[in-house]
Amino acid sequence: MTLFEKHHALIEQAIAAGKSRNFWTSYPENPKAYGEGMDEAGKAAFSAQMTQNFTELLQDGQAWVGEEFSPYLQLGIGVKYPQSNNETIIAHASKAQELWGKTNIQTRAGLLVESLERVKARFFEIAYATMHTTGQAYMMSFQASGPHANDRALEAIAIGYQQLTSIEPNAVWTKPMGKFDLTLQKNFKAMPKGIGLVIGCSTFPIWNTVPGLYADLICGNVCIVKPHPKAILPIAIVVAELQKLLKENGIDPMVVQLAVDTVDAPVTKQLAENKDVKLIDFTGSSAFGDYIELLENKTTFTEKAGVNCVILDSVKDIKAVAGNIAFSASLFSGQMCTAPQNIYIPESGINTAEGHLSYEDARNAIVQAITDLVDNPKMGPHILGAIQSEATLKRLQNAGTMGGNLILAAKGVANPEFEHARVYSPAVIELTSADEYIYKKECFGPIVFIIKTRNTEESLHITKNLSIEIGAITCLAFCTDKNIIHHIEETMNQVYTPVSFNLGGAAFVNSHAAFSDFHVTGGNPAGNASFTNGEYISKRFVWVGNRMME
Amino acid sequence: MTLFEKHHALIEQAIAAGKSRNFWTSYPENPKAYGEGMDEAGKAAFSAQMTQNFTELLQDGQAWVGEEFSPYLQLGIGVKYPQSNNETIIAHASKAQELWGKTNIQTRAGLLVESLERVKARFFEIAYATMHTTGQAYMMSFQASGPHANDRALEAIAIGYQQLTSIEPNAVWTKPMGKFDLTLQKNFKAMPKGIGLVIGCSTFPIWNTVPGLYADLICGNVCIVKPHPKAILPIAIVVAELQKLLKENGIDPMVVQLAVDTVDAPVTKQLAENKDVKLIDFTGSSAFGDYIELLENKTTFTEKAGVNCVILDSVKDIKAVAGNIAFSASLFSGQMCTAPQNIYIPESGINTAEGHLSYEDARNAIVQAITDLVDNPKMGPHILGAIQSEATLKRLQNAGTMGGNLILAAKGVANPEFEHARVYSPAVIELTSADEYIYKKECFGPIVFIIKTRNTEESLHITKNLSIEIGAITCLAFCTDKNIIHHIEETMNQVYTPVSFNLGGAAFVNSHAAFSDFHVTGGNPAGNASFTNGEYISKRFVWVGNRMME
Repeated sequence: MTLFEKHHALIEQAIAAGKSRNFWTSYPENPKAYGEGMDEAGKAAFSAQMTQNFTELLQDGQAWVGEEFSPYLQLGIGVKYPQSNNETIIAHASKAQELWGKTNIQTRAGLLVESLERVKARFFEIAYATMHTTGQAYMMSFQASGPHANDRALEAIAIGYQQLTSIEPNAVWTKPMGKFDLTLQKNFKAMPKGIGLVIGCSTFPIWNTVPGLYADLICGNVCIVKPHPKAILPIAIVVAELQKLLKENGIDPMVVQLAVDTVDAPVTKQLAENKDVKLIDFTGSSAFGDYIELLENKTTFTEKAGVNCVILDSVKDIKAVAGNIAFSASLFSGQMCTAPQNIYIPESGINTAEGHLSYEDARNAIVQAITDLVDNPKMGPHILGAIQSEATLKRLQNAGTMGGNLILAAKGVANPEFEHARVYSPAVIELTSADEYIYKKECFGPIVFIIKTRNTEESLHITKNLSIEIGAITCLAFCTDKNIIHHIEETMNQVYTPVSFNLGGAAFVNSHAAFSDFHVTGGNPAGNASFTNGEYISKRFVWVGNRMME
Repeated sequence: MTLFEKHHALIEQAIAAGKSRNFWTSYPENPKAYGEGMDEAGKAAFSAQMTQNFTELLQDGQAWVGEEFSPYLQLGIGVKYPQSNNETIIAHASKAQELWGKTNIQTRAGLLVESLERVKARFFEIAYATMHTTGQAYMMSFQASGPHANDRALEAIAIGYQQLTSIEPNAVWTKPMGKFDLTLQKNFKAMPKGIGLVIGCSTFPIWNTVPGLYADLICGNVCIVKPHPKAILPIAIVVAELQKLLKENGIDPMVVQLAVDTVDAPVTKQLAENKDVKLIDFTGSSAFGDYIELLENKTTFTEKAGVNCVILDSVKDIKAVAGNIAFSASLFSGQMCTAPQNIYIPESGINTAEGHLSYEDARNAIVQAITDLVDNPKMGPHILGAIQSEATLKRLQNAGTMGGNLILAAKGVANPEFEHARVYSPAVIELTSADEYIYKKECFGPIVFIIKTRNTEESLHITKNLSIEIGAITCLAFCTDKNIIHHIEETMNQVYTPVSFNLGGAAFVNSHAAFSDFHVTGGNPAGNASFTNGEYISKRFVWVGNRMME
């Protein structure tokens, strides 16, 4: 049985899931589904790796580098990775490209799905590596870097398989010419574009990396993974598993390489500008993303900064709504590209099922919900996670000087397991719609603006313009009037921003599920690509058709 | 019965044809299939239009302009078209966009296929309009502007319909959460990017325009058609038919507008740079195409210049091969983006089924075949057509001064029907591989270079580098050795250029059939887009998904 035969049903199931957009997963998100002892074994494996060189990669290095730092331990984790110079990496990639581009789509699809099985066996170790680099809480680390990321990778494989098999590779073309037929043999090849570079971010080192990585690979492109220097270990495990699997199957493991660097000696621009790098996936700041998009002769896929808005128009139950907003704004301390930042409330207040609520009462309900969440020791530290970077912490500590009215200051929150963990509650700043200079930019991390507007129309107007000017990945609205719901949806969709309405219970705006939710539309400045639409795949290869008369 | 119901089977058939890549057409290419009297009626309609204003468009104009010139009659055809200023055109387009973007895909698909039926009824009139603007001979005018163009338009509609219906528009998403399920209503919309601009060329005013036009329209984008000032009438008829059909169906006819200009007062750049124009399709020179590609915040689809090469390695029958090359180089006097220009023959000659042939004999066979073709009054004028522009004629007349050895001079060829027709036979210039400065650029029109190379490997090397540096739309090779065939195919496909091998009979490298051949790969400098791959469609809209809790 080939690997393709082993996994074919799963691939077909994934293609169908992408069409139906119903939830579907092959990798359970509940850690308990993975059996007894797995968690402990993963934790032990991570602990054993700490302070050691990461020797699993099949690539050489001239030096060992690494400077990851645990937001929970407030200590460097001490793992070092082999570092090569860029010329060597590109040379290895070019060599590997020659044969990888000629493997057939079934071989690639089978290998890549199999690699996800190998990664699955290491979900727990990856979860601890993610915690101690990004600051994500345990459950998010497990789900986002484990099953959810595998689902996103499988999605890319499935769409790639679908596209590359969408055309008959060998056709006999016959044109009736009257007295005789004209017959040509034709073949159609999806030619890979060449070397891909996937540039990771510090907060979601796997979830934001594997879509581009697997999209490159399924289309026959080799891939260089360039993680953020502060979040290497999680994706290093994925790269190592891929390399080992490739080698076992007689394929050059340099099809995937890890390119590590340090904050002080970055290599990303050199790699990105290398003429042999044809495809670049990037997650990170708008400034760097804009630079990537403007590089000549590259096909780029970016996810940059955006400002996600919450429009409060009318609600059934303010307590439930405030709780939902508080959770979304607090989850991983707002260090998510999908976290809400700007919350608009009309100055005249909002209608609820229990009568009218003033602006002040609505505002206070949200502030109270955040306080309740962060002060609840069973909730707070497990939702907030820890602050990943010094820059985010500094921004939070300076929230009182940004302008506006600081109505809830950030405060340290105790983590029962990690005494030194860098855990802070969100800061809430009250503004009015006139304070554009404050709220018209992304303040990454747990800073929330509550903005008093004239009315819902103004809230929507600001939200729309932010999408056009700065970009937005998502938008959350609470509204009980069908006509206004329709108006908000139409207005925001025109500027290529999706809207989630009236979320409650376990539904949060932050979550974008593979096979169902597109992540980033690609239509506004928050990014030029989308996990995972057809274009995300089709831009990575070129159809070439040959003709032959026999 | 809706228009969609009427045409649904045809659309599904077209989707299947695109997958199987077998020949298939719904618009017969033989003029006789269209019935008695159609040709005469079309000719009469064209004659009646000459010297008159074109009043069929449903758009206003502040002036009447037109300066088309018949290469056959050597006279202006005297047709004038309503011209508006660009602001008015953009304003009309923006208004039409509001509703067109909200029509559903079935409505659009039905209307667009129906419009092709309307166009089909005018194939003959369009054929004469094409002849007397581009200089194409009658049969090419009929086929390229008629059935072949309709097939290309149908292909764009079919792929658009396929993509826009590839995702369930309304999904109920359920996530099992253990004790309860989380359920969200989701909808998915393919949001159009906005106003499209399709910039036509002077030699194929319909065939190169309708793919972009129909691709824009099927995705919900309105479209401004900007024809070349010397080739308006053929596409004006198509635009008029679309406008009338839209109006009949209660839709703003400004969904499609014609923007005419003159050589001395061009409007193309103003339109292209307008901030509301989001999509640009262009066929023409590399200089202008490069400018289009570099415009900011536009999605562009270009077909530019390229140099198409012929590699002679070994042949069965030199006479058949020389005849095939002569035909391809003479067809419409080489004024085709797919016409071969550079013919490489090894200095040691080539093997044939009847023994070895010296370089000189192979070269002479090609020259003789061209001479035989152009001197045959039953063939020459009907293959050559006429020279479209003064610039092409001047280039041809100066062929003797380009360098190299002019071994066949261009000469006037009589057209039995049109005494003053601008008909010339191709010029053939002999070069060696050292003459890069001559053959490493496109010389649009009937100029052929026969280039003596050291061997086939050098021929291939030059061909490959031309693809990388200048671009190529196609490549023709003659070779009887399977290993060398494989080597040529692999080498050229790596630089995203298709190869046609050993064509003969009625198979010519110039022809790219809808539903079977990709036209331009998009992977080399000859253009950044391809008729019609998935990306040609998917770049024209953005998927946006909304979520709602009830």
